[in-house]
Amino acid sequence: MKKKILILHGPNLNLLGIREPEYYGRLSLDEINRRLHEKAAIYGLEIECFQSNGENVLVEKIQAAYGTVDCIIINAAAFTHYSIAIRDALKAVGLPAIEVHLSNIDAREEFRRHSVIADIVMGRITGFGASSYLLALTAAKELMEKNE
Amino acid sequence: MKKKILILHGPNLNLLGIREPEYYGRLSLDEINRRLHEKAAIYGLEIECFQSNGENVLVEKIQAAYGTVDCIIINAAAFTHYSIAIRDALKAVGLPAIEVHLSNIDAREEFRRHSVIADIVMGRITGFGASSYLLALTAAKELMEKNE
Amino acid sequence: MKKKILILHGPNLNLLGIREPEYYGRLSLDEINRRLHEKAAIYGLEIECFQSNGENVLVEKIQAAYGTVDCIIINAAAFTHYSIAIRDALKAVGLPAIEVHLSNIDAREEFRRHSVIADIVMGRITGFGASSYLLALTAAKELMEKNE
Amino acid sequence: MKKKILILHGPNLNLLGIREPEYYGRLSLDEINRRLHEKAAIYGLEIECFQSNGENVLVEKIQAAYGTVDCIIINAAAFTHYSIAIRDALKAVGLPAIEVHLSNIDAREEFRRHSVIADIVMGRITGFGASSYLLALTAAKELMEKNE
Amino acid sequence: MKKKILILHGPNLNLLGIREPEYYGRLSLDEINRRLHEKAAIYGLEIECFQSNGENVLVEKIQAAYGTVDCIIINAAAFTHYSIAIRDALKAVGLPAIEVHLSNIDAREEFRRHSVIADIVMGRITGFGASSYLLALTAAKELMEKNE
Amino acid sequence: MKKKILILHGPNLNLLGIREPEYYGRLSLDEINRRLHEKAAIYGLEIECFQSNGENVLVEKIQAAYGTVDCIIINAAAFTHYSIAIRDALKAVGLPAIEVHLSNIDAREEFRRHSVIADIVMGRITGFGASSYLLALTAAKELMEKNE
Amino acid sequence: MKKKILILHGPNLNLLGIREPEYYGRLSLDEINRRLHEKAAIYGLEIECFQSNGENVLVEKIQAAYGTVDCIIINAAAFTHYSIAIRDALKAVGLPAIEVHLSNIDAREEFRRHSVIADIVMGRITGFGASSYLLALTAAKELMEKNE
Amino acid sequence: MKKKILILHGPNLNLLGIREPEYYGRLSLDEINRRLHEKAAIYGLEIECFQSNGENVLVEKIQAAYGTVDCIIINAAAFTHYSIAIRDALKAVGLPAIEVHLSNIDAREEFRRHSVIADIVMGRITGFGASSYLLALTAAKELMEKNE
Amino acid sequence: MKKKILILHGPNLNLLGIREPEYYGRLSLDEINRRLHEKAAIYGLEIECFQSNGENVLVEKIQAAYGTVDCIIINAAAFTHYSIAIRDALKAVGLPAIEVHLSNIDAREEFRRHSVIADIVMGRITGFGASSYLLALTAAKELMEKNE
Amino acid sequence: MKKKILILHGPNLNLLGIREPEYYGRLSLDEINRRLHEKAAIYGLEIECFQSNGENVLVEKIQAAYGTVDCIIINAAAFTHYSIAIRDALKAVGLPAIEVHLSNIDAREEFRRHSVIADIVMGRITGFGASSYLLALTAAKELMEKNE
Amino acid sequence: MKKKILILHGPNLNLLGIREPEYYGRLSLDEINRRLHEKAAIYGLEIECFQSNGENVLVEKIQAAYGTVDCIIINAAAFTHYSIAIRDALKAVGLPAIEVHLSNIDAREEFRRHSVIADIVMGRITGFGASSYLLALTAAKELMEKNE
Amino acid sequence: MKKKILILHGPNLNLLGIREPEYYGRLSLDEINRRLHEKAAIYGLEIECFQSNGENVLVEKIQAAYGTVDCIIINAAAFTHYSIAIRDALKAVGLPAIEVHLSNIDAREEFRRHSVIADIVMGRITGFGASSYLLALTAAKELMEKNE
Repeated sequence: MKKKILILHGPNLNLLGIREPEYYGRLSLDEINRRLHEKAAIYGLEIECFQSNGENVLVEKIQAAYGTVDCIIINAAAFTHYSIAIRDALKAVGLPAIEVHLSNIDAREEFRRHSVIADIVMGRITGFGASSYLLALTAAKELMEKNE
Repeated sequence: MKKKILILHGPNLNLLGIREPEYYGRLSLDEINRRLHEKAAIYGLEIECFQSNGENVLVEKIQAAYGTVDCIIINAAAFTHYSIAIRDALKAVGLPAIEVHLSNIDAREEFRRHSVIADIVMGRITGFGASSYLLALTAAKELMEKNE
Repeated sequence: MKKKILILHGPNLNLLGIREPEYYGRLSLDEINRRLHEKAAIYGLEIECFQSNGENVLVEKIQAAYGTVDCIIINAAAFTHYSIAIRDALKAVGLPAIEVHLSNIDAREEFRRHSVIADIVMGRITGFGASSYLLALTAAKELMEKNE
Repeated sequence: MKKKILILHGPNLNLLGIREPEYYGRLSLDEINRRLHEKAAIYGLEIECFQSNGENVLVEKIQAAYGTVDCIIINAAAFTHYSIAIRDALKAVGLPAIEVHLSNIDAREEFRRHSVIADIVMGRITGFGASSYLLALTAAKELMEKNE
Repeated sequence: MKKKILILHGPNLNLLGIREPEYYGRLSLDEINRRLHEKAAIYGLEIECFQSNGENVLVEKIQAAYGTVDCIIINAAAFTHYSIAIRDALKAVGLPAIEVHLSNIDAREEFRRHSVIADIVMGRITGFGASSYLLALTAAKELMEKNE
Repeated sequence: MKKKILILHGPNLNLLGIREPEYYGRLSLDEINRRLHEKAAIYGLEIECFQSNGENVLVEKIQAAYGTVDCIIINAAAFTHYSIAIRDALKAVGLPAIEVHLSNIDAREEFRRHSVIADIVMGRITGFGASSYLLALTAAKELMEKNE
Repeated sequence: MKKKILILHGPNLNLLGIREPEYYGRLSLDEINRRLHEKAAIYGLEIECFQSNGENVLVEKIQAAYGTVDCIIINAAAFTHYSIAIRDALKAVGLPAIEVHLSNIDAREEFRRHSVIADIVMGRITGFGASSYLLALTAAKELMEKNE
Repeated sequence: MKKKILILHGPNLNLLGIREPEYYGRLSLDEINRRLHEKAAIYGLEIECFQSNGENVLVEKIQAAYGTVDCIIINAAAFTHYSIAIRDALKAVGLPAIEVHLSNIDAREEFRRHSVIADIVMGRITGFGASSYLLALTAAKELMEKNE
Repeated sequence: MKKKILILHGPNLNLLGIREPEYYGRLSLDEINRRLHEKAAIYGLEIECFQSNGENVLVEKIQAAYGTVDCIIINAAAFTHYSIAIRDALKAVGLPAIEVHLSNIDAREEFRRHSVIADIVMGRITGFGASSYLLALTAAKELMEKNE
Repeated sequence: MKKKILILHGPNLNLLGIREPEYYGRLSLDEINRRLHEKAAIYGLEIECFQSNGENVLVEKIQAAYGTVDCIIINAAAFTHYSIAIRDALKAVGLPAIEVHLSNIDAREEFRRHSVIADIVMGRITGFGASSYLLALTAAKELMEKNE
Repeated sequence: MKKKILILHGPNLNLLGIREPEYYGRLSLDEINRRLHEKAAIYGLEIECFQSNGENVLVEKIQAAYGTVDCIIINAAAFTHYSIAIRDALKAVGLPAIEVHLSNIDAREEFRRHSVIADIVMGRITGFGASSYLLALTAAKELMEKNE
Repeated sequence: MKKKILILHGPNLNLLGIREPEYYGRLSLDEINRRLHEKAAIYGLEIECFQSNGENVLVEKIQAAYGTVDCIIINAAAFTHYSIAIRDALKAVGLPAIEVHLSNIDAREEFRRHSVIADIVMGRITGFGASSYLLALTAAKELMEKNE
């Protein structure tokens, strides 16, 4: 049976490709999701891409992943820096998680250097634009294989 | 007329009994609510138990309590540490509130030692698992009697 | 064509006039909105007033302003102090924004002295009760005229 | 055989009921102890109530509890904030301990928000006046039952 | 009898319109004062505009306002960040005061985010260039009317 | 009836005149007490001088002052910097208290610049050697006269 | 020849007796000076009382004291907390100095707990209203006698 | 012509596979390098792998990369946290750099959460063991293609 | 005449060998004292071993050492971290002192990394269990010989 | 036409050569100014030396330099550490400025390590006594030549 | 077979006996090493003494100790305070290590109070000059015996 | 005999003139050294210029200066901010040292504002590009003359 990866996009990522390309690149979120599906097909993985501006929506999506998903790739965007609710949800479901960011968050405002989920994820990939997600997918694939 | 107590459960508490029992015990939220109703019946109190992962949902539940509820027992979970919106709502309605936590939040991550509502509640009960709620209900009952 | 101003009210401001008048004055939110419409009519501006207790609702309202609104006046209330999601939304749409507060937030709890949006708005008006909004509307009008 | 609970009162609590009732209520320590005995009788517990202004006296009382007492309820009062000697004693004897405070210590001076024993006790109950102790006794009773 | 407003300009504001227009706009202080007088005439207010680079001169101007002035509008410029003497003077005379800044001081050097007078003024208006003053005058007028 | 002043000397002050004269001067504690009695006689005040190295002894001396003493002069020595128990005792008895130190504690180790009782005493006199006490006695006398 | 004491009053102290009596008492500065002269006459000391709101004026008064004055009593008021220029002047002239404050500055705003001159004066007397000065005069007299 | 990637391993990474496998995995550095060469061959990239325990050796290797290398992948290990010399070298040569770590450095000692190079690299990949390097190689390849 | 060494054991050390052997080893305090006497006999030193849970008892023991003892070896246990009274006593008697700890206090809770006596003792020995004392005795012996 | 350099001496520098020679050397300010004129003559530069204890006087001197002076050499003395007004004046006139200090301010009190003008001047020269000024004059000359 | 102890001396310790005897004593490093060998002979231990000013040299010496040495005694000198590379090397080889310092590093500059290896060594001995090493050798010997 | 000055260049300064001219100017290190030799010849001083990227190499160069060199001019570059080993070497040899930087390090990243050698050098010259060195040479020459 195919392994399933949940890919979560946090607040304002629905604006990707529209605003502030110097930070986030010129690709739309749809295009990023398309590329993720393309690569997932090659890897033989099932993926679900999901964006929300709502903290609770993301919390519940993570909760629902318990028992149905094998790995979570999450770009929590602004929530990265304060949503302990998302941290708790990730910790509670206990799935391997990978934190991604399009921009290099260490090279922006000081407050972006602190992530409330960094210490509970498996690994982090930041700064490569849309490729951050694709690299995370590769990392997830390898993890799935290792766990088999 | 019966006094009414609103019992609020914050984000991820719907997972109780399922994940991380070392922190939260093995009881489900339904079981906790059942015990609360049982005890409330003995005390002659009306209670409403309500869980949400949504900060705004909790804020509005607190707002709605104004004029209809006599006391609030709240386990704000992750929101304890950053939801000033919940703090403001509690302060605005001006009802006596009791902060509870299942685990001893002072014995976990450093950031859990700070609560943004601790200084505006009447009292706090932490670390006794499901009993934290039941003790809070007793405290609420006594408060109701004192205020009569 | 008339310039359009979006006026956002954050969490708990729906309680205005009901609770804590020592901080927020005795006017209801409806009354404040009425006065804003009155003044906007005089200024020849179109305004939309919108309150929400939901961070995501405000984020999406800000996103929707992109391309349809000329200026945002925002009283983010509690979110002022932690909602980086709202900060990001404001920054992403790139519209001139004015931060307002009814009370003088520098004269209350220490944590209220820090605003996560202060450094990305055009200006701030705090402490004048309902007039904070009306002064902001005047500021917005002047800005609109300057940009024409 | 009856379970035994040691109830410790720290410095200045002998003044209870005499000074600063806005923080500590109007009950004398004797009256609190009387109510504790009353409730202990109902619970079938043996209790010993003990007050001292001396850090070393409390340390030695805790040491002596080793092997003779089943649970400690402690209101360390001022010592809460700096007596590492009491912390070490509690940790050394390894008995389940419950921290209580009459007032809500989070709502007073900033320095009272830090307790040097909070992370080594089982749970904490603060802010309910004399009831803080009585609730702690209930918590202790439940703990005794669970451990049987 | 006409209400009187004292408008104080702190150090280096005499250079307005000459240097660093990216922060302070292109208007000279004389032009700002002219506009303030124009608007005051419309409002039926008497105003006095006064600039000094001297902390003591401003302190004494504030002291002299006691009993002769109804409201103070102050742009303390650099003194905003360290002149406790000006803070004490404002507090001592007990007149309603409004803090204004031409630039958005929260968007500049970190040290400009702290104002030693912010917590004792009635309200603050920052970031609107010369309009900051004019908006403050409107706020002062409304205050005068309310107090009548 | 004569007013009574309690003069408390904290830990290690029994060594006065013996060790570290560069900080504490060359007078013994007995000599200081003698001078205090001499001056008290002139002022028509009754005084009691009391030294202890025990925090609890000082706490209980302060407690006992309640109802029997009119003013406390205290050199808490090392306890100045951490004994919240002494602070609480002073606050509880509610007597006017004067904090004295022989040396200028602001000119020594950094940790000596913080006193846990400074904000609850009436006034402080530091740095004048034995005269610190005598000046405090004068201050106490004046206070007694004012309160008559 | 008579010893000479310079008594310096910092900014806003010219308002004494007029504003904020809860902090500063009800005596005017003239009255305080009168009492100081009265006491100085008894002590056989020559004194000069001098108030200024100007940091430089105080600095130069201190400089001028070099060689002509035997001791400085200074209430630097607001300058206490930031005027390193006054600190440097006091240090440079090398005269024994006594720091006084009318109110207990440790019991007010947090920033008032830090004095930039505390570690270079001989001693400090705070919190006794006008008596702070008179006690300092006594301390100065004793110092003069000791140095003879 | 083939693009060239320099892969730098910092201090103690020569021990890989030998010690602390819970942090660093069980692969030796040789094995990691072999896999990198294997993948580079597939990608048509030339790579050089280089380990040193010497800060100056790494600094000079980075300097030498100027003009001869197209991208640097660096696991600075312990130097991550204090070697400003390496930071300066990376900044000086101006090549795109990718920071990698085998372990999730945010989940270990607090001091490992700060990297002195994080804000000057293009992106970061941490926590995936040997795969961190391989993912970085993929990221480098994509970057090379984008820049062509 | 034999040199005399005073060996002080702070609070809770009377529990040695009974509780928390992972930190403190399995030897009782009596056994440690026995070994110290044994070694002292070999060294031709007179020693006195003394344990107390009372800060004042230790303070007075240190005071009494003045003139009768040649060196102090002290394991202040919990008092290490806050007892400025003990620091002051050690400083006042001016005897060479050696600080010992059974466990490596730098490897435990963060607050144990700060010792209020570390900067006034001659040297420190930590982490070797009972041997910490024995090594200190050797160090003391050498010191005695050097001073002869 | 000769280039003109303004040399500013801050508060208390008029005491040079009189007090605290261990920090400031034994030369009087007049002597330093004489040497500066001597060297300026050799360099073909016009210089003006100016000392003031008044922050506003210095601010206005800097303002007046705009358009008439080519470079400012400033020893702001105590103002170095807090006068944002001087910083703002220097920034506003936009002239190249050189910060000098006679003593090595990094080797004195901790607070002297922070300069509020250090980040806006061209360069700094500290610790060489009178030579600090002369070296700055050389630096200014070179700068003038470079800009020609 | 003889147990082997590696004794490491960090940067600038080759200057021992030549410079700053007030901190480091008057013995040369050769003399210290000679005494160590002497004592090791008595203990039946093999020792190697090694000094380097190079961080990488020390790192590699530690790495090489793996499998060939039984215990490391290290005076990391300046590296104590920042060399995480040395910390990592010590941790990686997993040998028992003892940290020594000649001087009492807690009694010098503030930055010397923090050691980056203190929490990973077995124990620490500081302040006894050359004896620090000899005491460490004794501690090492005892450890070797215990582990046999 | 000619006085000898050692001029040390820290890590990455060998890249001067090649990279980041906005900070470091356009001159190569060779050109700077040539100018230093030129000026030294005029001054009748012998100089040695030495660059290294190795901390230990610089440490040993400083050690070797003891007894052979009269003054050290050092641009420690990145090591300025963390190399306590270089600090210790400078302190140990006890030669007068002058700290130079090409750029104004106070106007760059926050971490560059702290120098670990600033408080032990004689003086500092920063921000004048290559002239920083030449000014330091002049300062050194004057120092040599003064010491003759």
